[in-house]
Amino acid sequence: MTDTYFMEIALGLAEEAAEDGEIPVGAVVVCRNRIIAKARNQTERLNDVTAHAELVAITAAANYLGGKYLVDCTLYVTLEPCVMCAGALFWAQVGRLVVGAPDSKRGYSRVTPSLLHPKTRLETGVLADESQTLLAKFFQRLRT
Amino acid sequence: MTDTYFMEIALGLAEEAAEDGEIPVGAVVVCRNRIIAKARNQTERLNDVTAHAELVAITAAANYLGGKYLVDCTLYVTLEPCVMCAGALFWAQVGRLVVGAPDSKRGYSRVTPSLLHPKTRLETGVLADESQTLLAKFFQRLRT
Repeated sequence: MTDTYFMEIALGLAEEAAEDGEIPVGAVVVCRNRIIAKARNQTERLNDVTAHAELVAITAAANYLGGKYLVDCTLYVTLEPCVMCAGALFWAQVGRLVVGAPDSKRGYSRVTPSLLHPKTRLETGVLADESQTLLAKFFQRLRT
Repeated sequence: MTDTYFMEIALGLAEEAAEDGEIPVGAVVVCRNRIIAKARNQTERLNDVTAHAELVAITAAANYLGGKYLVDCTLYVTLEPCVMCAGALFWAQVGRLVVGAPDSKRGYSRVTPSLLHPKTRLETGVLADESQTLLAKFFQRLRT
């Protein structure tokens, strides 16, 4: 199982979000090569700005594990997390974060890369083009 | 109804949190002088790092209003929000934020005050001593 494999699953969730009128972002939490949580952005459906894919995934993963911390987990997300989600990933002490496309407008790294937990290993750019294309198509459709 | 009045209610929620073994933080959302959401930190009870008082309050307030944005609301919180919660307050575009005690370790302002939405008016130090005392007592009890 590769990072690309899990990111493809996250991209599938992002596509589902787009079909549902949500900004297409998907997230998957993997623990010992097993997917323990899948989530997608649901801010519109739930009428809740906190329902980003990452937050929903962190809550679901902790619920599955019966513990708050995700130190042995990797979180895959198709778009660079925002400040809120980076803050949540910090609290969860996620072991590894794999990001698809960068977010030059709202990504946490535009503030400071040190928002993540010092123990979180970071990988970026996995299927970035695919994620970017999905987002671009979504916003193009919104504008027409 | 004054800021002190609403912060006292938030402090009461923080006290409930402490009694339940949670780090004592409480939050209240007020819209047109009416409380529309009350919340307290529930990270232990829910086994969820995202269950900070502010996030729970934002979700509850949006649910009450039937809309995601809290532009006409004031959120009272007994302790300075962390980065995650400041990010959520940004997305919610909360009209006004009233903070009790500062958080020199995990408060969002140690990163940059600009994490809040530019339209959010900020008031700090309302019943700060009372909030600080409650937190100090809680951590002292934990250590003994």
